[in-house]
Amino acid sequence: MALYDSLFSQLDVTSAQLLVTDNDFRDPDFRKQLSETVKSLLSLKVIPILNENDAVSTRKAPYEDSSGIFWDNDSLAALLALELKADLLVLLSDVEGLYSGPPSDPKSKLIHTYVKERHEGAITFGNKSRVGRGGMTAKVKAAVYAAYAGIPVVITSGFAGDNIIRVLNGESIGTLFHRDANQWAPAGEIGAHEMAVAARECSRRLQAVSSKDRSKILLDIADALKENENLILAENAADVAAAQQAGYEKSLISRLALKPGKVSGLANSLRMLANMEEPIGQVLKRTELAEGLILEKTTSPLGVLLIIFESRPEALVQIASLAIRSGNGLLLKGGKEAKRSNAILHKIITSSIPESIGKKLIGLVTSREDIPELLKLDDVIDLVIPRGSNKLVSQIKASTKIPVLGHADGICHVYVDKSADKDMAKQIVLDAKTDYPAACNAMETLLVHKDLVQTGLVNELIVELQIKGVTLYGGPRASSLLNIPEARSFHHEYCSLACTVEIVDDVHAAIDHIHQHGSAHTDSIVTDDHDVAELFLHQLDSAAVFHNASTRFSDGYRFGLGAEVGISTSRIHARGPVGVEGLLTTRWIARGNGQVVNGDAGIVYTHKDLTV
Amino acid sequence: MALYDSLFSQLDVTSAQLLVTDNDFRDPDFRKQLSETVKSLLSLKVIPILNENDAVSTRKAPYEDSSGIFWDNDSLAALLALELKADLLVLLSDVEGLYSGPPSDPKSKLIHTYVKERHEGAITFGNKSRVGRGGMTAKVKAAVYAAYAGIPVVITSGFAGDNIIRVLNGESIGTLFHRDANQWAPAGEIGAHEMAVAARECSRRLQAVSSKDRSKILLDIADALKENENLILAENAADVAAAQQAGYEKSLISRLALKPGKVSGLANSLRMLANMEEPIGQVLKRTELAEGLILEKTTSPLGVLLIIFESRPEALVQIASLAIRSGNGLLLKGGKEAKRSNAILHKIITSSIPESIGKKLIGLVTSREDIPELLKLDDVIDLVIPRGSNKLVSQIKASTKIPVLGHADGICHVYVDKSADKDMAKQIVLDAKTDYPAACNAMETLLVHKDLVQTGLVNELIVELQIKGVTLYGGPRASSLLNIPEARSFHHEYCSLACTVEIVDDVHAAIDHIHQHGSAHTDSIVTDDHDVAELFLHQLDSAAVFHNASTRFSDGYRFGLGAEVGISTSRIHARGPVGVEGLLTTRWIARGNGQVVNGDAGIVYTHKDLTV
Repeated sequence: MALYDSLFSQLDVTSAQLLVTDNDFRDPDFRKQLSETVKSLLSLKVIPILNENDAVSTRKAPYEDSSGIFWDNDSLAALLALELKADLLVLLSDVEGLYSGPPSDPKSKLIHTYVKERHEGAITFGNKSRVGRGGMTAKVKAAVYAAYAGIPVVITSGFAGDNIIRVLNGESIGTLFHRDANQWAPAGEIGAHEMAVAARECSRRLQAVSSKDRSKILLDIADALKENENLILAENAADVAAAQQAGYEKSLISRLALKPGKVSGLANSLRMLANMEEPIGQVLKRTELAEGLILEKTTSPLGVLLIIFESRPEALVQIASLAIRSGNGLLLKGGKEAKRSNAILHKIITSSIPESIGKKLIGLVTSREDIPELLKLDDVIDLVIPRGSNKLVSQIKASTKIPVLGHADGICHVYVDKSADKDMAKQIVLDAKTDYPAACNAMETLLVHKDLVQTGLVNELIVELQIKGVTLYGGPRASSLLNIPEARSFHHEYCSLACTVEIVDDVHAAIDHIHQHGSAHTDSIVTDDHDVAELFLHQLDSAAVFHNASTRFSDGYRFGLGAEVGISTSRIHARGPVGVEGLLTTRWIARGNGQVVNGDAGIVYTHKDLTV
Repeated sequence: MALYDSLFSQLDVTSAQLLVTDNDFRDPDFRKQLSETVKSLLSLKVIPILNENDAVSTRKAPYEDSSGIFWDNDSLAALLALELKADLLVLLSDVEGLYSGPPSDPKSKLIHTYVKERHEGAITFGNKSRVGRGGMTAKVKAAVYAAYAGIPVVITSGFAGDNIIRVLNGESIGTLFHRDANQWAPAGEIGAHEMAVAARECSRRLQAVSSKDRSKILLDIADALKENENLILAENAADVAAAQQAGYEKSLISRLALKPGKVSGLANSLRMLANMEEPIGQVLKRTELAEGLILEKTTSPLGVLLIIFESRPEALVQIASLAIRSGNGLLLKGGKEAKRSNAILHKIITSSIPESIGKKLIGLVTSREDIPELLKLDDVIDLVIPRGSNKLVSQIKASTKIPVLGHADGICHVYVDKSADKDMAKQIVLDAKTDYPAACNAMETLLVHKDLVQTGLVNELIVELQIKGVTLYGGPRASSLLNIPEARSFHHEYCSLACTVEIVDDVHAAIDHIHQHGSAHTDSIVTDDHDVAELFLHQLDSAAVFHNASTRFSDGYRFGLGAEVGISTSRIHARGPVGVEGLLTTRWIARGNGQVVNGDAGIVYTHKDLTV
C-alpha cells in the first residue's frame, strides 16, 4: 500500500486502502456500503485499493478446500468487479495473457479472445499454473466468472508499463473475456490455426482423388460462378457503394468493382485451368539407386497457402482455383472493403467442393484478427502470397517467418549498349517505360553507353520519351550532360511516366550499376554485339535478364506459364514470374524389394539415371 | 531529484544531490574535493546524483559555441566518470544503442561494439540527433572521449527497466565503447554485414570464370589440404586438448577431433566435386515465346550462404567446397571449441582462391558476435545451413527470417502391412532402427497392421529388436497387448536403441498416424500388396516415402546426389536429401531481336516447348 501511495502521490493522485474479508460479503448491508464508499471515493478522485484484510481474516487455506465467497486475489477482483458494477476488469499476470498451451512451449499461441465454447478444456496450462494462488488457472476461472456475469475482463502482462492504458485504448493485447465472445469471434487466433489444420486435412483428401475429379471441381465452380453472376454483382455493388460512402479513394474503388464480363472471364480461366496438364505427381527425375531400388523425385502440393489480398475480389477466385488445381489447402484474408464480395465468392467456391474432400479446404478468415496474427502461424502455413501494393508486400515480408512469394520492388533497367540498333533501342526503351508504367516490369532506369552521347542516340531516346510524356531524372553524369534534374536515388520505382537516365562507361559498368541499385527483378540489354549480350545475360543475377526484348515480357502469361501466381524476387523456391509450379514442392519416392543399408556393406549402388 | 529520492527511498537507499558548474572544474582543489566527497558518500552507501547547477551556472548556450569543460549532461557524465575514475559509464538513451544509420531506418543495425577506426564517420545519425542536447551525436562524442581516456562506456536504452543490471551482468546489450575495442572486435556486426556484401561481390566474379577455373580452385584446395595436413592436425590437436581441459563432454570432443585419414578423405571429396558436372547455367526449360524470342530457365547460384556449425571442422571444408562449386559466397560461423582448426582450414581454403575472385568469397566470422545477430542479416544472406544438433536447428529456425535448409526432427516410421513378407519386414525394421540409431533417418516408430498380432509377426519383430538391444515403448494398443511400457508421446525422436511400437487397423490408419505424429522426414511401408503400397506412396506427404526399403536410404550419397548439403524437412525450395541443387536457384534468360509488348497487340505468342 505504501508503494501504491508513494507512486500515486507522484502523480498528485490520492489513493485509499480498503480491506475486506470473506465474511464481510455475507452481509448485504456491507455490500451496499462498500459500493457507496467506492463511489464516493471515486467522485472525490481518490483511487480505492482493495485487498483482503489478512490480519483479521478467518478464511482457511488452501484455497481449493475453501468454500468461501472468494479465495484469492483473482476471485476477490472478480467479486468486486461485479459488486461495484465495473466497466472492465483487468487482471495483470507475468505473461502476455492466456496461451493455448504452456507459455514456455513455442507452439503455444496467445488467445486474443476467450470463447468458452471453444477454449474450455482445450487449454493446457503450464505446471506452475496448476498449483498455488494467482496462477493462470485461477485467473481464467475468475475471468470467466466475471465475464459471464456481464463484466468484460482482460488478462494481460503487468510487466509492460503501459498495458493498462493500451487496454483502455482498445488495443488488442492480452486475452479478452466477454459474455458475447462466441458471437463475434467465429475465427479467433486458435480459429485461424484450426482453419489451417483443417485445410491441410482437406488438401490431403483432395490430393488423393483423381486428376479428373480435381478438374471437375474447377468446372463446377466455373458453372456456379456463371449461375450466380447476378448475386455476385449485387454483393459487389453493395461493397462499392459502401466504399464510396466511406470516402475511399477512387483507385481502390476501381480495383474493388467487378467490371462487366469479369465473372465470365473468371469462369473461362477456371475452365482453362481444369484442362491444364496435371501438375501433381509429375516425375522430375528417376534414378536406379541399386538393382531393384528405383528412386523418383515427384511434384507434390506445398500444403497450406495463405493469400492476403487488397480490394480485387477476383484474386480470391484466381488463387482458390490455383490452390485446387495444385492440391493445396488455402486460407483467404481479404480487405474489409470487399467483405461482401469475398463472402459470396467464397461461398460459391466452397459449395462446389464435394463433402468427401471438405469445404474447409478453403477458409475465409473473417475475424477481427489482424494480419500480423495470421503471419505468426508458421507451424501450419507453408507459403504466404500477398496480392496488393508494394507496401503490403514489404510489410508482410518484414513480419513473418513463413516464406513469402512476391516482390516488393520492381526497379527494372534497360541498358543500351554502344552497338545497339538505333530503332530497336528506341522501340524497346519506349515499350519498357510506356506500355504500362505502373507495372512492376516497367523500366525505371535507362542506362546508356557513353559513346552514344556523341552519336546522338541518347538525345533521341530522351526526346522520344519526353514526347510520350515521360519525366526524366538524371544520375550525376546524365543530369549535367543532358541538363535534366538530378534523381534523388538510383533505387527508385516511379510506377508512373517517369524514369531515371544515366550514362555508363560500358557493359561492365552497367552490370555493376544494376547489381548495386536494382532489385533483381528484370533487366534488359539492347545490343548487336553477341559477346556483350552473353556477358550481360550470364553475369547479371536478376530473376529475369533479356537481350533485345522489352522488360514488359517478364510475366507469367507471356512466359507461357498459364496462370500466374506472382512474380518473385526471392532467391529461394520460385524466382521471377511464377506459375503453378510455385505452389508445388517435391517428394522422393522409392520402390524397392527389401533393400537395407546395413552399413552400406551388402549393397552395390548403381546410381543410374533412368528416363522420365 | 525528488523522484530519485522517492524511488531510492522505497529501496531503503539514501541518495544525495551534488550540483556542479562548468567553472568549478577549472579549480583543481574542487576536483579533488569532489572525488573525496563522492568516495565518502559511496562508503556510507549513499548514491550521489550529479547534475549541473543550472541556477548559478554562467555557461552560455547553445553548446556548439561553448568552449566549456562540459556542455551537456553527456559530456558532464564523461567528465565525472574520468574525475571519479569510474569502472563503467552507462549512458541511457531512448533507443537501444548506436545504430549504423537512423534507428527509424529498418536497414540500420545496432552496433554492439564501437570501433573508432571502423565506425568514425561511417554512421549516419538521424535528423533528430543532429541538433539539440542529449542526442546520439552528443552521446557518442562523450562516450568516445571517456572510452579513449580509459573508462568503458555502454550506451543503452533507459526504457527497459533492467538494462543497467543487464549491463552489469555483462550481457551484450546496447553499444560498448572501449579503448581496446579494435583489438578484440575484428568483425563486429557491421563487419559481418560487410563480409556478406564482399562475399556476394566475390561470388559474382566466381560465377564469371569458366567451369574449368572453378574446378581448378577445388583441386588447388585439395592439394593445399594434403600439403598442410600436419599443420591442420596440430591445430586440431590443440583444440582437442583445450576442449579436454575445459571439461567438454566426450561426444563433443569426438566430433571435434579429425580422425586419421580425414584430411585425405576431404581432399578426395574435393577432387570428386571438381570433376562433377557443372551445376551453374544448366538449362532446365526452353520455350519459344514468339518468333525469334527464346526463353530459358537456367540454374544460378543463390548468392550468399551462412553455415553455422558445431564442433566438426570438416563441415567447414565440405560446405566451402560446395559453395565454390555452386558459385556462392559463404560466411562460416563455427563453434569456439574448434577455433584453431577452423582458422587454419579457412586460411588454407582462401589461400587457393585467386586474387581476381577475392579471398573474401569465404568469410570466417570470428567476432564475439552471437548467432542471433548473424541471423538478422536477412538483407544480405540468402540461406542458412545449420550443421549440428536438432536443438541448434530448431533454435535457428525459430529466430530468423532467412530461409533455413535443415531438419529439426527426424521421426521416421516403418509401417508393416498385413501382406508384408515376413523376412523382409524383419530385415527392414532391424536395419531402419539399428544400422545407425542416432541418424535422423533411423526409425523411431514401428507401426504394425493389427492382423499381424494373430500371425505372430508383431511378436517376432519385437523379439528381434530386443535381441539387438532395442528398448521398446508402446502406444496405447501395443503397450497393453504386448506388455511393454507406454510411450510418453508419439512425436518423439529417441536417437538411440529405442523405439515406439503401435498397432494400427490398416494402411489408412497408418497414414493418418504418420501425418499426425511424424515430422514428414522419411517413412517406409513393407507390403507385398501393390495397391496398398501405391496408396501409401501417393497419400503420405513426407519428404521421402519408400516401399520395401529401409528408411536409412534417405541420404544424399545413397540417393546419388553427390555431396550432401543437408536433409530438409522444409517444403519450400529443397526437400529431403539435398545435393548441390539446394544451393542453386533459377534465372530466366530471354534472347530476342527487338520484340516489344505494346499492349500485346503486335505479337503472336507461340509458347512452343523447345528441347533442352
